[in-house]
Amino acid sequence: MPEDVLAQARDELLDWHGSGMSIMEMSHRSKQFVSVAAAAESDLRELLGIAATHKVLFLQGGAQAQFALVPMNLLGAKKSADYVETGQWSKKAVQEAKRYCTPNVVASSANERYTRIPGRETWRLDPDAAYLHYTSNETIGGVEFHWIPDVGSVPLVCDMSSDILSRPLDVSKFGVIYAGAQKNIGPAGLTLVIVREDLLGRAAAITPSVFDYKAQVEADSMLNTPASFGIYLAGLTFKWLLAQGGLAAIEKRNIEKAALVYELLDETEFYRCPVRRDDRSRMNIAFTLRDAKLDEPFLKEAKAQGLSELKGHRSVGGMRASLYNAMPLAGVKALVGFMREFEKRHG
Amino acid sequence: MPEDVLAQARDELLDWHGSGMSIMEMSHRSKQFVSVAAAAESDLRELLGIAATHKVLFLQGGAQAQFALVPMNLLGAKKSADYVETGQWSKKAVQEAKRYCTPNVVASSANERYTRIPGRETWRLDPDAAYLHYTSNETIGGVEFHWIPDVGSVPLVCDMSSDILSRPLDVSKFGVIYAGAQKNIGPAGLTLVIVREDLLGRAAAITPSVFDYKAQVEADSMLNTPASFGIYLAGLTFKWLLAQGGLAAIEKRNIEKAALVYELLDETEFYRCPVRRDDRSRMNIAFTLRDAKLDEPFLKEAKAQGLSELKGHRSVGGMRASLYNAMPLAGVKALVGFMREFEKRHG
Repeated sequence: MPEDVLAQARDELLDWHGSGMSIMEMSHRSKQFVSVAAAAESDLRELLGIAATHKVLFLQGGAQAQFALVPMNLLGAKKSADYVETGQWSKKAVQEAKRYCTPNVVASSANERYTRIPGRETWRLDPDAAYLHYTSNETIGGVEFHWIPDVGSVPLVCDMSSDILSRPLDVSKFGVIYAGAQKNIGPAGLTLVIVREDLLGRAAAITPSVFDYKAQVEADSMLNTPASFGIYLAGLTFKWLLAQGGLAAIEKRNIEKAALVYELLDETEFYRCPVRRDDRSRMNIAFTLRDAKLDEPFLKEAKAQGLSELKGHRSVGGMRASLYNAMPLAGVKALVGFMREFEKRHG
Repeated sequence: MPEDVLAQARDELLDWHGSGMSIMEMSHRSKQFVSVAAAAESDLRELLGIAATHKVLFLQGGAQAQFALVPMNLLGAKKSADYVETGQWSKKAVQEAKRYCTPNVVASSANERYTRIPGRETWRLDPDAAYLHYTSNETIGGVEFHWIPDVGSVPLVCDMSSDILSRPLDVSKFGVIYAGAQKNIGPAGLTLVIVREDLLGRAAAITPSVFDYKAQVEADSMLNTPASFGIYLAGLTFKWLLAQGGLAAIEKRNIEKAALVYELLDETEFYRCPVRRDDRSRMNIAFTLRDAKLDEPFLKEAKAQGLSELKGHRSVGGMRASLYNAMPLAGVKALVGFMREFEKRHG
C-alpha cells in the first residue's frame, strides 16, 4: 500500500476526524461510516469512469470466493460457462466452477507452461455460455492481457485482482469485474465486485444471502457488517490514485517501471524472461537466472540490500519481481541496479 | 476495541517489529505473518482452554455468511437441523438455513417478543437432527444464554458473535462455535470458527472451497489470502485479554458493569428493562423510558456528554447500552450517572 495512505491511516487510527473513535469502532450504519463508504465508491467510479449501468460492491471472502460466487450468481438457467486458462489462478477458477456447472476451457496456454496469452482467434467460444471468464493478470507466470477480449453478447467476467487500477479501463465492456483488494486496492479481506445491472437477479437458491450480488446491491453492500476498515483504506488509496493524476498517470509510471526490468532481462543472457513479449505483465515480472545455482546467492544478496519477496512461486521456481502501484520507481531502480551489479560479479 | 490494542496497532502500522513493512503488506506466507497467526491461535486456545479435539479457523464473510456455511458444512446426508429462536439474529439464521435444509424451530420466544430464553424443558428436539443451532447473545433484544444447553449427542452449534470472550467457556461441549470479530475480537471482516475435528469432511459439494471447514483446517486458514490485518488485531486483543487476567477476570468486570445498569433499571419506574431477569444480557442492555417522548432528549443529552450509540435497534425501538469487553467501567459509571441525573430532571 502507498506509504502516504498507511501514514494517514496511522494518524487517524485512534481518532477519525475528531470523532474520538477509531473508524474500526464505528457502527457501519453511522453517518460517518456511510459517508466514508460512499466517498470510496464515488472516487472509484471517477477513477475507472464507471457508468450507472454498473454497480459497485465491497464484499468479503477474496477473489477465490468469487471463483464459486460468480457461477452461483450468473449461471441462471444455463449449465455451462466459458473459461480462458492462462495460469494458476484461471486454472483454479475453472476447478471451482466445476462445483456448479460445466466450465468449457475455450483456450489454454498450459502446453506452453503459461508463458503466453492464447490469441483470441484460437478461442472456441460457446455462443450460449452464461459468461466468459478470464484472469487479466497471472501473478505466478507473469502474463497479462493488454487487450480486452471481444466475445460478442456473452457477458465478460474478469478476475482483475492483481492489475486493477494499474491502468485505465473500459468498464462498459464487462459484465462482472472482481478483485481481491490486497494488490492495488487495500488490505486483504476486502473484495471489490463491479457488476452490470442487467446481470443481477440470476443467483441460484443456494447462494448465501450475503454473497448474492442483487441483495448486496440493494443493501449498498451492507446486508451484513462490511469489512469497514478495508473500505476505509481502499477509499484512502482511491484518493491517493486521484492525487497521482488518475489511472493514465499511474499507467505511465507502471509502463516505465516494468520497462526498466524487461530491458535488462532482454539485453543479457544472464537473466531470462520466459514470457512472450506481447503478454508480459507489468505487475509481476517472472525471470530466471541462467545458472540456477546462483538463485540462492541472488536472493540472499538482494535481501541484504533490502530487496525482499523476489523468490518465484514454488510452482514455477525462479524469480519474480512484483511492481504493484505502491512500488515507487526508486524501488525498481534499486532492483535493476542490484541485478546489473550481481551479473557483473557472477556473470 | 481496547484502546491499548489500537495504540499498539497505530505504533506498528508502518513498521512491524523493525521489518520496515506494515503487517498489511507482508505476504501471508511469510515467516513473520505465519508467526503472528500462530500466536493468535495459541493465545486464543489458552484463553478459552481449547483442546486439540477442536480446530480454530480465521475466515472471512462475517457471522451471517456462517448462517449459510454451517448447514453447507454440517448437514452431510441429513436433511434437517434444529434451531432455537431467541431474537432477530437466530431468526435470520433459520431463514438462511432454509436454502439448504428444513430447519426445525425447536423453541421460540417470538410470542414473548424475544424477551426471554425458552426453558430447555420446552424444547422439542429431533434426535436425528444434523445439529442444534442457537445464538448465545441477541444484541437487539438483549437476551443472553447464561447456560450451555445439553442436547445429547446432537452437535451443538452456537453463534457467539456478540459474547464470545466475555466469560470463560467450556468449548468441549460444542460442535461448532462461530463469531464475527467485530464485538469482542477485532475488526469487522474476520470470522472465527471453532470446529470439532470429527465434524470435518461433511461439506456439501456446493460449498465454496474457501469456506469448506476441512479444506481450511488442512491449510491453516490459508487456502486463500486471509484477512491478515484482522488476524493481527485479534492476536493483539487476545494478548490484551490474557494481560487482564484472562476470561475469569473479564467476566468479573463484565458482571460488575452490567449490574450497575440493571440495578438502576430495576430501582426506578422511569426506566424499564423488558427482559426476564435470568436471561438478561451482559453485553447489550435493552431498556425503555417510561415516557417515549423523552427518547429524543435522552439521546441528545447523552450524546452531548459523549455517550453515543444508545439508540435501540429500529426493529424494537427504545434504548440499548452495549457493554462489550472494551467498554471500561468508567464508561458505564458515566452512563449510569447520566441516567440518574436525567431522571432527576425529567422524572
